[in-house]
Amino acid sequence: MKRVCIVGAGVIGSLFAGHLARVCEVSVLTRRREHADALNADGLRVTGKTEHRARVTASDDPSALPAFEVAIVATKASGLEPAVTALEGRFPEATVVTVLNGIGAEEVVRAHGAWPIVSGVTFMSGTRHSDTHVEYILDTETWLGPYEDTPFEVVRDIADTMIASGLKVEALPDLRPAQWSKLIFNAAVNPTAALTGLPHDLHFAEEGDPGDLGHLVHGLVDEGKAVAAAAGIELHDDPWEMNVLATQRGSAHYPSMLEDVDARRETEIELITGSLVREAARHDVPAPLHSLLYALVRGKEASWQA
Amino acid sequence: MKRVCIVGAGVIGSLFAGHLARVCEVSVLTRRREHADALNADGLRVTGKTEHRARVTASDDPSALPAFEVAIVATKASGLEPAVTALEGRFPEATVVTVLNGIGAEEVVRAHGAWPIVSGVTFMSGTRHSDTHVEYILDTETWLGPYEDTPFEVVRDIADTMIASGLKVEALPDLRPAQWSKLIFNAAVNPTAALTGLPHDLHFAEEGDPGDLGHLVHGLVDEGKAVAAAAGIELHDDPWEMNVLATQRGSAHYPSMLEDVDARRETEIELITGSLVREAARHDVPAPLHSLLYALVRGKEASWQA
Repeated sequence: MKRVCIVGAGVIGSLFAGHLARVCEVSVLTRRREHADALNADGLRVTGKTEHRARVTASDDPSALPAFEVAIVATKASGLEPAVTALEGRFPEATVVTVLNGIGAEEVVRAHGAWPIVSGVTFMSGTRHSDTHVEYILDTETWLGPYEDTPFEVVRDIADTMIASGLKVEALPDLRPAQWSKLIFNAAVNPTAALTGLPHDLHFAEEGDPGDLGHLVHGLVDEGKAVAAAAGIELHDDPWEMNVLATQRGSAHYPSMLEDVDARRETEIELITGSLVREAARHDVPAPLHSLLYALVRGKEASWQA
Repeated sequence: MKRVCIVGAGVIGSLFAGHLARVCEVSVLTRRREHADALNADGLRVTGKTEHRARVTASDDPSALPAFEVAIVATKASGLEPAVTALEGRFPEATVVTVLNGIGAEEVVRAHGAWPIVSGVTFMSGTRHSDTHVEYILDTETWLGPYEDTPFEVVRDIADTMIASGLKVEALPDLRPAQWSKLIFNAAVNPTAALTGLPHDLHFAEEGDPGDLGHLVHGLVDEGKAVAAAAGIELHDDPWEMNVLATQRGSAHYPSMLEDVDARRETEIELITGSLVREAARHDVPAPLHSLLYALVRGKEASWQA
């Protein structure tokens, strides 16, 4: 893994690009032309948990990208399909790593090419200050695992390079337990934050009064666990404990779905709650609470067209 | 019924005051001093379905009010307790009519005095253009019924006076079937509008795609009907049909709970969804969807303090 292409330079993509550029040649496929121009002119600055400045080669045109061995797809849910369509028929030797929220990104990638795929889940977080400056806020782990018949050594090799670049990464033989833990956590927390306007704060763990938000979050977690059990997944972490721990961290995290709602942007509801509701239907498990949040967030998106 | 006091001059209170002043002496108890001053100086103007100008005597001080036979309490949920506290120990001869959304307002009134009580439900709607100008938009019915042992003739007498003033009013021997129909309708529609930002439009009746909002509204109605059945109430109208009919009316209604959320004001969630959730618990009927909306709207209110 000498040459890496970061597909989508939001917070997570920028954190990967900024770190990996210390040990690899990094190219960046952007959605906007100006973003690529700014990265080529100024490089990428990382502040916060680690501080450095990276040189990258950026373009919004996939045919202008230098060859690479690994692509890390870190778009938003809504940017996945167009990004993978742009890569279709190109770079057949590359391995594609997906680090989107939710589940189902691998299937979208597979529909556009035969690349070996590595599944990823990341718990890093940061704040994007500009097209060329990202702040690294939570230096928590990224987990990688094989998708379909990708050899585990390929996963381990990518993980080792990321670790050498200063990131916290773990290679797991089966990522699904971690992916589903995060899916259920996100499906319980993100739409709730998006609909109430609350950052992920102590309200999410409160269960004193019958109307307290913690009951709702707990109910959502329990529904999600029933779906995971029906899908044959043993969870890596208990999503309720993840929720309680996260709310006790001191500074409340501002979930990206709440940022999307504030900015009236399309949210990641399809890859998160939508995926979970579809898995529930596939396994014939009732998921009324997730279905309700799914309809509410979609209704919210519809209200911006009205 | 010659002298009427309107308690709370929002949209509904102003519509009652503006009409009744044609056939009665009308006084108005306001929350704000400036509101009373404006009404005393300029009177009250009604436009829309009916057009007239009313002379009223207004005050924010209950001891300054002229005597009356009937008080119509039309405050918001959050204004009920302070308004009834202000009336405590006064006007023992008066009958008190409650026309708030939700259920449970009668119990709050009873806790402050022994007045005979008439329960009301109104389907009128309007827009408040200023402290002295209300637009009458939907001239739909108001229904009145006895609470506890209030004689039905008292209810009929009040209804007759309202009808003589130009309003559409029906006196019913038992209001609860109508009150519960409206409660379930409001509990399904208002929080959904408040959380999505959608006015009560066609989305609320859509049930094509599994993520459509109509499924959620239907599920909320079904839960509410199960609570009503357990409470021994036979509904006057089917809340789902009320919902479908209302969304087909052409111009989408903007529910007051959505207005409250837009203005970051305390909502009526307690008298609407809160009442329904408490009735569900009392009768041991599960109401997970209403509990979820209850927690979400309360979470939204909490976000304004954050």
